[in-house]
Amino acid sequence: MKPSIDAATPLMSWSADAAQRILEYVARVSDEDSPDHVAPKERIAVFDNDGTLWCERPNYVQAAFVVDELSARVQQDPSLSDSPVVAALVAGDVDGALRHGGLGALAEVLLETHAHIGAEAFTERARSWLQSAQHPQLGRRYVDLVYQPMLELLDHLRAHQFRTFIVTGGGVEFVRAVSDDLYGIDRDDVIGSAVQLDLARHDGRIELIRQPAIFGSPNEGAPKAINIQMHIGRRPIVAAGNTAGDREMLEYTAGSAHPTLCLAIDHDDAAREFAYEGASVTQPDAESLRDTARMQGWTVVSMRDDWNRVFATSTLL
Amino acid sequence: MKPSIDAATPLMSWSADAAQRILEYVARVSDEDSPDHVAPKERIAVFDNDGTLWCERPNYVQAAFVVDELSARVQQDPSLSDSPVVAALVAGDVDGALRHGGLGALAEVLLETHAHIGAEAFTERARSWLQSAQHPQLGRRYVDLVYQPMLELLDHLRAHQFRTFIVTGGGVEFVRAVSDDLYGIDRDDVIGSAVQLDLARHDGRIELIRQPAIFGSPNEGAPKAINIQMHIGRRPIVAAGNTAGDREMLEYTAGSAHPTLCLAIDHDDAAREFAYEGASVTQPDAESLRDTARMQGWTVVSMRDDWNRVFATSTLL
Repeated sequence: MKPSIDAATPLMSWSADAAQRILEYVARVSDEDSPDHVAPKERIAVFDNDGTLWCERPNYVQAAFVVDELSARVQQDPSLSDSPVVAALVAGDVDGALRHGGLGALAEVLLETHAHIGAEAFTERARSWLQSAQHPQLGRRYVDLVYQPMLELLDHLRAHQFRTFIVTGGGVEFVRAVSDDLYGIDRDDVIGSAVQLDLARHDGRIELIRQPAIFGSPNEGAPKAINIQMHIGRRPIVAAGNTAGDREMLEYTAGSAHPTLCLAIDHDDAAREFAYEGASVTQPDAESLRDTARMQGWTVVSMRDDWNRVFATSTLL
Repeated sequence: MKPSIDAATPLMSWSADAAQRILEYVARVSDEDSPDHVAPKERIAVFDNDGTLWCERPNYVQAAFVVDELSARVQQDPSLSDSPVVAALVAGDVDGALRHGGLGALAEVLLETHAHIGAEAFTERARSWLQSAQHPQLGRRYVDLVYQPMLELLDHLRAHQFRTFIVTGGGVEFVRAVSDDLYGIDRDDVIGSAVQLDLARHDGRIELIRQPAIFGSPNEGAPKAINIQMHIGRRPIVAAGNTAGDREMLEYTAGSAHPTLCLAIDHDDAAREFAYEGASVTQPDAESLRDTARMQGWTVVSMRDDWNRVFATSTLL
């Protein structure tokens, strides 16, 4: 089957060329008569979140959430800003916060902000914040800055019996708060960085309490590939990312015995979003994913040239 | 809606009373008109595996697998049995193996047996073994010793838009090798104990290599509740287990804001299977789950009285 591009195309927000490439790939693995047919259970697609499914500039959405909540707490208890890291963060000066003690001290403050509360309470709080929080420059709520072309890709894959998963360096409970509303991806199909949970009993009822420490490693780089195996138990055949922290996830996918589709989203659109090279938090000096993708023969998606529109055309939350 | 028990009942292998209790619960949370209606996304059901979904006596199936594979290796390299732990294990003497160095030395040998191979290769090997391996006493393959009443319960829950998950103290990759065939539960819906994986590149292709060490904690006791939150992100409303290692999973479930169904399988059927008190590996002296269930008002399932038949009526693998 040769897919045709017309008004009824499921990838309306993609350029004709880019859409054609994706449609051909999906037909190739899902068409019953294709020599490259892949059984539905093996049709696993994994997506980075920040910078791949929604905007990550100038700050990660979750970082804005933590700073907002920290600021509210400082208003109630001004002595908290005796800490120079807290004071810099609340003033919106992340570089300043880093100068006062490095990444370790910064991480400690961030982790402490939502420690000692229940995992379920945290999800409710994140969801509530996301319902109204506005991007500082783009004049929309963060939840309205999901990428329309990627929503269409998720839909097209699922229409062809793919299972879609988020594999994020961000906090798993933060992304889960809205993953179903924004992306149609249920909570158990989100893999991310996690904090340690402790079991506590209150009035005979178990609650799982967030601790101010990461569980295992942040979900960036090699841990993305490892956590895909830990959580899903199958090697994906489709993957999309935008930073060096997604490299191993795409490489793991590319190593499948089946035909694969590996997408590197290139943020080259200063007019509609931002133009930047996606950097990995844990590997700031690594080769850009765009360069890796060119070397490996993966598909580089130019936001400027391949996307007819960028942000969601309807309100999802 | 009052469900009626007749020849068309979906819980044919359960006694009329036990079936009625389950059918009423499922109707109560899934019936649109019920005041206790629970949204489908919240209909999460979690099941222990060994002793809850299939037979765990006289040995865990996975232990039999490891000993079989270790024995094959000793035949190729007899010097391996210079280790008294290995020699005792290969002779089928687990107590003897424990006497020679305790649980730590035993775990080391077991973990080493399948270390240094790829996660995908391990799954294939486990699946291949399970296709033929026979139970030492019951005259059937292990895979034919899944419990028919529990298969019917899984089906009935899924027919009412429940999601079903396995939460096992066993190795996640071992259970995943057959979870879909035996239980209709896909690999990503299996949560279990895991070994550490290392990322390696061979000829430019990533493989994830099993290490001889547990990742985090064994999935027993409090970790079962914590890993449910880590993996699923929702508190279950149905849970089933058979040992003290399942207590926290059932307690976490019982703490839901919705009506819950907590089942403790009581192995009291020496005629058809085995009669024993399910012990937790990590908490051998803990209160039996049957006693906890009675205290907490959970449902104790008597294998002898509540199950009309015990083992699967058809071949699943």
